[in-house]
Amino acid sequence: MAPAIQPDLDLAASLFAELGRATRSGRGIVRDSYGAGEQAAHDIMRSAAQTVGLEVAIDAIGNLLLTLPGRDRSAARIFLGSHLDSVPQGGNYDGAAGVVAGVCILSGLRKSSFTPPCDIVVMGIRAEESAWFDVPYLGSAGAFGLLDPGCLGVRRSDNGQTLQAALEQGGFDPGAIRERRRLLDPGRVRAYLELHIEQGPTLVERNLPAAVVTGIRGCKRFRNARCIGEYAHSGAVERRYRHDAVAATVALLHHMEQLWVQEEAAGADLVLTAGELFTDPAMHGPSKIAGETRFVLDLRSLSVATMDAVAREARAAAARIAGAYRVRFELGGTSDSPPAIMDERLSAALMGVLEEPFAMASGAGHDAAVFAGQGVPTGMIFVRNASGSHNPEEAMSIEDFAVGTRAVTKLLVDFPI
Amino acid sequence: MAPAIQPDLDLAASLFAELGRATRSGRGIVRDSYGAGEQAAHDIMRSAAQTVGLEVAIDAIGNLLLTLPGRDRSAARIFLGSHLDSVPQGGNYDGAAGVVAGVCILSGLRKSSFTPPCDIVVMGIRAEESAWFDVPYLGSAGAFGLLDPGCLGVRRSDNGQTLQAALEQGGFDPGAIRERRRLLDPGRVRAYLELHIEQGPTLVERNLPAAVVTGIRGCKRFRNARCIGEYAHSGAVERRYRHDAVAATVALLHHMEQLWVQEEAAGADLVLTAGELFTDPAMHGPSKIAGETRFVLDLRSLSVATMDAVAREARAAAARIAGAYRVRFELGGTSDSPPAIMDERLSAALMGVLEEPFAMASGAGHDAAVFAGQGVPTGMIFVRNASGSHNPEEAMSIEDFAVGTRAVTKLLVDFPI
Repeated sequence: MAPAIQPDLDLAASLFAELGRATRSGRGIVRDSYGAGEQAAHDIMRSAAQTVGLEVAIDAIGNLLLTLPGRDRSAARIFLGSHLDSVPQGGNYDGAAGVVAGVCILSGLRKSSFTPPCDIVVMGIRAEESAWFDVPYLGSAGAFGLLDPGCLGVRRSDNGQTLQAALEQGGFDPGAIRERRRLLDPGRVRAYLELHIEQGPTLVERNLPAAVVTGIRGCKRFRNARCIGEYAHSGAVERRYRHDAVAATVALLHHMEQLWVQEEAAGADLVLTAGELFTDPAMHGPSKIAGETRFVLDLRSLSVATMDAVAREARAAAARIAGAYRVRFELGGTSDSPPAIMDERLSAALMGVLEEPFAMASGAGHDAAVFAGQGVPTGMIFVRNASGSHNPEEAMSIEDFAVGTRAVTKLLVDFPI
Repeated sequence: MAPAIQPDLDLAASLFAELGRATRSGRGIVRDSYGAGEQAAHDIMRSAAQTVGLEVAIDAIGNLLLTLPGRDRSAARIFLGSHLDSVPQGGNYDGAAGVVAGVCILSGLRKSSFTPPCDIVVMGIRAEESAWFDVPYLGSAGAFGLLDPGCLGVRRSDNGQTLQAALEQGGFDPGAIRERRRLLDPGRVRAYLELHIEQGPTLVERNLPAAVVTGIRGCKRFRNARCIGEYAHSGAVERRYRHDAVAATVALLHHMEQLWVQEEAAGADLVLTAGELFTDPAMHGPSKIAGETRFVLDLRSLSVATMDAVAREARAAAARIAGAYRVRFELGGTSDSPPAIMDERLSAALMGVLEEPFAMASGAGHDAAVFAGQGVPTGMIFVRNASGSHNPEEAMSIEDFAVGTRAVTKLLVDFPI
């Protein structure tokens, strides 16, 4: 039995070091979407791919395509990818790990003179983060011609530059977005595999190096919920005569947490967060019953039915609690994004090649959701990461990265795709 | 049987109208402590007292003293009083009602040629509200020589004028405060009676015109409570791995409300309010688990033991919940003010003369608390008021005011004091 083909981890380690050196600004990493930081990362990956001997192409909106030719060059291709931008003051791994993984996997295949049945393309995707331009997935959605052309007028959050101007400055073609041009035919993508650091603590807490992602949770968010009561003196009003917006909001959020515990016990996939909650600083006071709260209620699940049921119960509970507390809730509409379920066959295959198989949901969005939405069979691997993401403290070990990249390498070599 | 002596309600109605005309600014009433608005109210009351035929005096810090001489002028005196200042954009009745009540009661006694056994003094007290100078009870505490001389340097919240400068500008003597001079000997005050509008909705809800106040609740306030968790992605962290400051704060406040319900059922006097509650606007976000909350927890009761027990349980519950939610609570110290219990004999006597006897606690502070604190037998009457206090919509009817002033008149005439 021949020794298994290994990913090129030395290359990976040197690429992470080079990316960090080139794009660190102060404590954190700055790879601004369609800006200098992201471009530096693209340049580094492109140069590495040329050294490895991959074919290099750049699409009309700047996505980087690094190809290891397969035996049948006309066959539908396998994509390995992730994004190369970061949030402001982000970490070195969110996004980049998936692109580095692709290049070091293809380098390993090349060093073993392995020629795959079809082309394998590493895609260094542009502008996944919405921190710079308030539109997520610009690169992957743009590649499929899915962007609303109006997004060309969206301005960068820090310097006000429009997306159109940023594209032109980078030498790319805003016309591709304006005309909703399809740069990538989903029917010609055999599979999309994305390795990404886990953005939560599950793998750290469970002491596991990597996991197969079963799906990306959808989101149903009450973005602008309010509770309206009446301001009054905190000492002078008995409980039963109050219109206390804080007490009513506490009752609602407590009820929703109880519901979450029940759903969890019943095996449902759900996370539920009120991440913003505040009384009005212009009106509240230490001696005043609060006459208003504002809050966000963010529901996420792999199941639309679960999100719908929980949102319905939020409205029903708000109505009951409003009566009991003599207040009014205005939960408002929800902003919804659908879950993206990973391909069952691919996920099962990844479970088969992962050294300590473990499956979990992703709470955050990824380019994989866009590919899955286009009907491309899509799989994801999470690699353990110690300090959450979107901060300078992201911490992925090369050993854990090796576990993830070995699994993908084995999948490509065994080719059950 | 002689007809009962009546308070002079025509005078009261005209005084309320004149006070409103003289001190309304925009929608609300502005009687700035030691400023032009308060002085206008003092001038009106002084002039009315002269017309009624009362003796007029002004103490060193500007409190107005309007005296109906009694048979024994050397006997300890009965005081009827309240304050003549208002909060910015306040209402016409908070404070002034008690001073108008005193003058219209003495006018009624005078018209009936009633001479009381001892002098009865209407005290128009200065600067009860802490909205202008951040020190409550300046007038009454100053009269008893209780003020910290450092308060002379406190600046008016709107124009920055020091209390010292405001006193001098009004023609008063800051030296009285600097030397902690006792302008009023509590041993020479036989009783202090204060009529005040209710600042909560209890009398409106119960459809009663007036009530006897059994005491003024003390306050124990966690002014700067915090919960510290960890910011994280709202989608990516399971419940059991979260450090969610909002969820933990909701759990604590829900527990405290349950405790309040229990205390209430057990007959304890208690109100409990979280009037300020907020995540950090610089750090929170719709997709983030909140890493911090700040809040105020305000406990009030007629019983120090109740406040102490509830505060102890707040700390114990915070410790338990911190463990369960993997957060840290920093409740901080409490700022405490003691309850002021009204004189039982006086309260019983007031219950005996009130047309529909009803007793309740006051949640807000009043000058009566200062008199009671000096060992002066103190009683209070609340008059129904429709829209809370400290706002332009305060609404007291002259009929309800009549019920309160008739009770006090009867008390003075029957003289069970």
